[in-house]
Amino acid sequence: MNPLLPAGDNFRAIDVIRKKRDGIELSEAEISSLVSAYTRDEIPDYQVSAWLMAVVLRGMTRGETAALTDAMLRSGEVLDLSFLPAVKVDKHSTGGVGDKTSLVLAPLAAAAGVSVPMISGRGLGHTGGTLDKLEAIPGFNVNLSVAEFRRVLATCGCAMIGQTAEIAPADRKLYALRDVTGTVESPYLICASIMSKKLAEGIDALVLDVKVGSGAFMKTEKDAAFLAELMVETGERMNKKVVALLTDMDQPLGNMIGNALEVVEVLEILRGGGPKDLRGLCLELAGWMLHLGGVADTVNDGKKQSQQLITSGKALDKFRQMVELQNGDPKIIDDVTRLPHAKHVSPVLSSSQGYVASLQCEQVGTACVILGGGRERKEDSVDPAVGIVLHKKVGDAVSAGEPLATIHYNAESRGTRARQMVGESYRIAGSPVREKRPLIHRVIGNSGETN
Amino acid sequence: MNPLLPAGDNFRAIDVIRKKRDGIELSEAEISSLVSAYTRDEIPDYQVSAWLMAVVLRGMTRGETAALTDAMLRSGEVLDLSFLPAVKVDKHSTGGVGDKTSLVLAPLAAAAGVSVPMISGRGLGHTGGTLDKLEAIPGFNVNLSVAEFRRVLATCGCAMIGQTAEIAPADRKLYALRDVTGTVESPYLICASIMSKKLAEGIDALVLDVKVGSGAFMKTEKDAAFLAELMVETGERMNKKVVALLTDMDQPLGNMIGNALEVVEVLEILRGGGPKDLRGLCLELAGWMLHLGGVADTVNDGKKQSQQLITSGKALDKFRQMVELQNGDPKIIDDVTRLPHAKHVSPVLSSSQGYVASLQCEQVGTACVILGGGRERKEDSVDPAVGIVLHKKVGDAVSAGEPLATIHYNAESRGTRARQMVGESYRIAGSPVREKRPLIHRVIGNSGETN
Repeated sequence: MNPLLPAGDNFRAIDVIRKKRDGIELSEAEISSLVSAYTRDEIPDYQVSAWLMAVVLRGMTRGETAALTDAMLRSGEVLDLSFLPAVKVDKHSTGGVGDKTSLVLAPLAAAAGVSVPMISGRGLGHTGGTLDKLEAIPGFNVNLSVAEFRRVLATCGCAMIGQTAEIAPADRKLYALRDVTGTVESPYLICASIMSKKLAEGIDALVLDVKVGSGAFMKTEKDAAFLAELMVETGERMNKKVVALLTDMDQPLGNMIGNALEVVEVLEILRGGGPKDLRGLCLELAGWMLHLGGVADTVNDGKKQSQQLITSGKALDKFRQMVELQNGDPKIIDDVTRLPHAKHVSPVLSSSQGYVASLQCEQVGTACVILGGGRERKEDSVDPAVGIVLHKKVGDAVSAGEPLATIHYNAESRGTRARQMVGESYRIAGSPVREKRPLIHRVIGNSGETN
Repeated sequence: MNPLLPAGDNFRAIDVIRKKRDGIELSEAEISSLVSAYTRDEIPDYQVSAWLMAVVLRGMTRGETAALTDAMLRSGEVLDLSFLPAVKVDKHSTGGVGDKTSLVLAPLAAAAGVSVPMISGRGLGHTGGTLDKLEAIPGFNVNLSVAEFRRVLATCGCAMIGQTAEIAPADRKLYALRDVTGTVESPYLICASIMSKKLAEGIDALVLDVKVGSGAFMKTEKDAAFLAELMVETGERMNKKVVALLTDMDQPLGNMIGNALEVVEVLEILRGGGPKDLRGLCLELAGWMLHLGGVADTVNDGKKQSQQLITSGKALDKFRQMVELQNGDPKIIDDVTRLPHAKHVSPVLSSSQGYVASLQCEQVGTACVILGGGRERKEDSVDPAVGIVLHKKVGDAVSAGEPLATIHYNAESRGTRARQMVGESYRIAGSPVREKRPLIHRVIGNSGETN
């Protein structure tokens, strides 16, 4: 791919703003010039924020969305991983509560022979972030240079790092501006932001986990499906294999929320245990990664291979290898007490008998942030030890006085608030819920494969 | 009126942006806080430009428009003209080509006993500006201090100046931002900008001349009527008498375009001559000013009084007095050759015989800008001497080789381009135009008065 050209002499940001304001489709050259000029600080924030708001309210065509993604992608370095013989596959989640699948999937897919160059983010708002979870492992270094990243990848088939300055700088600049101008909430801008970063990883295929429900950014199936279709089409326009799974985030995924606690649950999964919903989703996503990565003929075959790699211990071995290569303490794998742990634990007891009818997911995520396990602002640091362990989830029977959850906390006042919030997020009904939401709502863009 | 309060501790610009983006009505307090904080440089341009774009695309309710007008008005000084016994009335035009009515109306209404504190603007784009026309009079000072403005007003009943730093600073800041972010074209923002400045003049009543047609900002009757209704309702909500006349700007008003040339035509009108369309519009607007100013029982009575003040020479005397008080050379009144004049004149000849079917008004205005008579950018200076004199207007019969217009120019290359543009702006048809557009399309908000 060619680097972005400087904006031509005839390019005027005001013309591009006016066109978008009036609902006229922008050309690839116009979008490329705008992104290029902004990345080079040649046009001011106030023009770009007006343009962003026009995009939020006017939308974009599929062509414009692809052009924006492409321009953002080419604003920085695109990793060349062609030295790796394996197919490069990544997975991206739109964010949720208790979603620790990345930590399972990278070693699992690598154990199957797929290469997984994973560049992740930190938690923001009520959702957790992969980097924060990895950093709960003492010593684990997510800030590898590109050269180190390539070395780890070549050695063990997977590597997990944070955003580097070289990758998609336009996205970093645009995201910071969107954050303060009310222009985050646009599927077109979300799509371009996610896809530009992921495609800059030099991958061949991508499995998208688009969350839907009370704990997701997309609260409705319609919004989630729209975003999923947009991302799949954008990826396909760029000649990548892309599939999107709409998965449930109406209650937290798995039982543990909080950085070190989630590493514990990841190890349970990699040992063949762990909660059923998390295990099911990991196998489903792994199935797709293996299938798109060319090591499994079908998704079901990919799921079976994944199950075998867990049973044989090969996935866990791969996790251990990655932890070692990224300077983490591998002893935590056999002794989770070496992970950071909170000073106090305290249960949330049910005040009534019945069945869990719902579990307000965003509120549970926010309770974890209040404990110190997440960030309200980007510059906040996180406490890896704190978190919440759920003992009851939707559909479970519960007696009065029985623990619904356990709060792991370091500060008494925060523990008290979180305990109250988690208690209030449970709704207990007299009779069992009639219909449980499926874990996988829908698969979009499976290139003809029926799931 | 109370000055704007500082934005409260709980005020966050991002919340106001998001609400407007989502189409939720903003409260008076939210709008006031936003304008106040922006005027005090407490929130950045990039947040306000995103908000402005949301306003352009989402619109505003009447209440929001009035709140914005009020907040902008109160961002600076509101003139207290209560020491003047007469009713204070102003006229405002949305801008056109050859529109020199302000120079006629201020002395004319003052001669009738109404007080006219007129604060005007400069030309921008294809339209002329009152200040540029006044400055074609050697020595005329449009930069009076507020104290001098009050003195001239008290002495002769009218005064004409430019925007001062004290009046509506929020509008100056917002307009500069709108100009570079594609957010000029919103009737709500246009209304608030015009009405905040006009109401800060301390007037009791306002006659609005909303132009419609090819030379106006509002090209269609529908858009012009919408803006007119918005401004009338906003003024009424602020307890001012406001009327709006939708008047034709499908061809230039009068025969002369260019700053000094327009002063010549103003003097013709004040002497009882001048072109019929310009004279008619001046009398109509004056009739309304006198009626709203309480010196005429009806608009027709106001028109009659105005005609008499022209015939008796009293309106011209008032013009002379104002020119003297504002340091202009009054000798130009009896000897227009003392006004700046261009080095060269050259005719635009008709290539065919027939009737003028249309005269592309914006193009004629742009030709005048190209001659140097207007500004493409705010910082440009204008040449007062250049311009265009039209000999034929819509409906007029013309022979082949007969002059359609005369170009007054100083630079040969500019003269050539303007001559070509003016020639191309005429459309000559074989038969006379069937229906002529009326000069006054509609009157809006006449408080029960039938015209």
